[in-house]
Amino acid sequence: MAQNIYDDPDFFDSYSRLNRSVHGLDGAPEWPAIVDMLPDLHGRRLVDLGCGFGWFSRWAREAGAASVLALDLSENMLAHARADTADPAIVYAKADLETLDLPRGEFDLAYSSLALHYVADFGRLARTVFDGLGPGGHLVFSIEHPIFMASRKPDWLVRENGRRSWPVDGYASEGARTTDWLAPGVVKYHRTLGTTLNHLIEAGFALRKVVEWSPSPDQLDAQPALADELERPMMVLVAARRP
Amino acid sequence: MAQNIYDDPDFFDSYSRLNRSVHGLDGAPEWPAIVDMLPDLHGRRLVDLGCGFGWFSRWAREAGAASVLALDLSENMLAHARADTADPAIVYAKADLETLDLPRGEFDLAYSSLALHYVADFGRLARTVFDGLGPGGHLVFSIEHPIFMASRKPDWLVRENGRRSWPVDGYASEGARTTDWLAPGVVKYHRTLGTTLNHLIEAGFALRKVVEWSPSPDQLDAQPALADELERPMMVLVAARRP
Repeated sequence: MAQNIYDDPDFFDSYSRLNRSVHGLDGAPEWPAIVDMLPDLHGRRLVDLGCGFGWFSRWAREAGAASVLALDLSENMLAHARADTADPAIVYAKADLETLDLPRGEFDLAYSSLALHYVADFGRLARTVFDGLGPGGHLVFSIEHPIFMASRKPDWLVRENGRRSWPVDGYASEGARTTDWLAPGVVKYHRTLGTTLNHLIEAGFALRKVVEWSPSPDQLDAQPALADELERPMMVLVAARRP
Repeated sequence: MAQNIYDDPDFFDSYSRLNRSVHGLDGAPEWPAIVDMLPDLHGRRLVDLGCGFGWFSRWAREAGAASVLALDLSENMLAHARADTADPAIVYAKADLETLDLPRGEFDLAYSSLALHYVADFGRLARTVFDGLGPGGHLVFSIEHPIFMASRKPDWLVRENGRRSWPVDGYASEGARTTDWLAPGVVKYHRTLGTTLNHLIEAGFALRKVVEWSPSPDQLDAQPALADELERPMMVLVAARRP
């Protein structure tokens, strides 16, 4: 089973105070780039892999989605999501993405925000999602970028020129990375970007777009701290399609 | 026109002494991984974009290719390649990949080794190559990895733990990077990996494989210095197909 850090009380408390937890999709700077990658949602059946507080699931229904199966491993997240939702077409359910089963051909879009880097066996998940989509179905997801995750000591380095660089080491050494983010001992799984993309291709997906996210000039004006994201990508967004 | 550093006498002299120049394909550690990505060459018509000394073109003919159009910007490289070749089915020609034209639908495989990062307008080149391939035609190429190229000071950093990290900064700032490699002032073009892949997808290609190259255990035993390539990728290999 995947680590369930979101049910750690300290982690959950800190996570709940993040911009993206308080302000939802508008608190996530990558959200406009994700919207650009989504298909028209009218009448579509969605599955949300790692739904968290359910922000996307509720937005998708407002954007016309017919139904959303919203899955998460965390009881805490699901309880909050259910409390914030009055919509019978959104079904929240507990699921471990490591061992997920989906009904075949049932969905038009699988979506996931910053959850799949917690999954050790991405190849299995890619095949499961492929089989869960109907022909022409879409997969759109964000993960932490392997440039951000690879290093044994992932933190800024100050160079002689006074500028900062992000360290990359151990990039080819795939597997668990344990970091202290909001709580000690959070376990994520590092894969090269090539490995992630090749798992999708081998599952049968056609890749549509790969975005190593960085802020727009307008976003930089509004949030100068986002300049970090020009130096090294923290997230990668991927759109793929079942042919 | 792309910079023609290979006709700089000092650069050319140093380049000629590299392992991959002296020993050809067997001196290039990524070569076995490239072979794995190539289609069967029997009877195929090839174009080699940046053929250098012509090692690949001659190998491809021995592997059964019907013909090779071998292109390079450097008169020096072409002169050496011609001197080493006695095969009328290999045609060497001078071409600038920045302004390349190809006959439409004429080729079954476009190949390129460590040349396309010298091209400023990769989108144009991707469209040109797509149009030059027949249906089902393949594109296989290697480029310097953007992790390797991005930084303003691309050199190893020693951490407090005594281990080395590779710096990444300016990753989202695409464009020219001037480095001193074999000669001063070599101009390469940094693009995010996403940008490279998206240009291929937009041109119409289906991505088949993306390999951020690292050595095999056998290669590490034979060449311990290749351990650097486990820390950060220097090259990325891409296979794509015209549907």
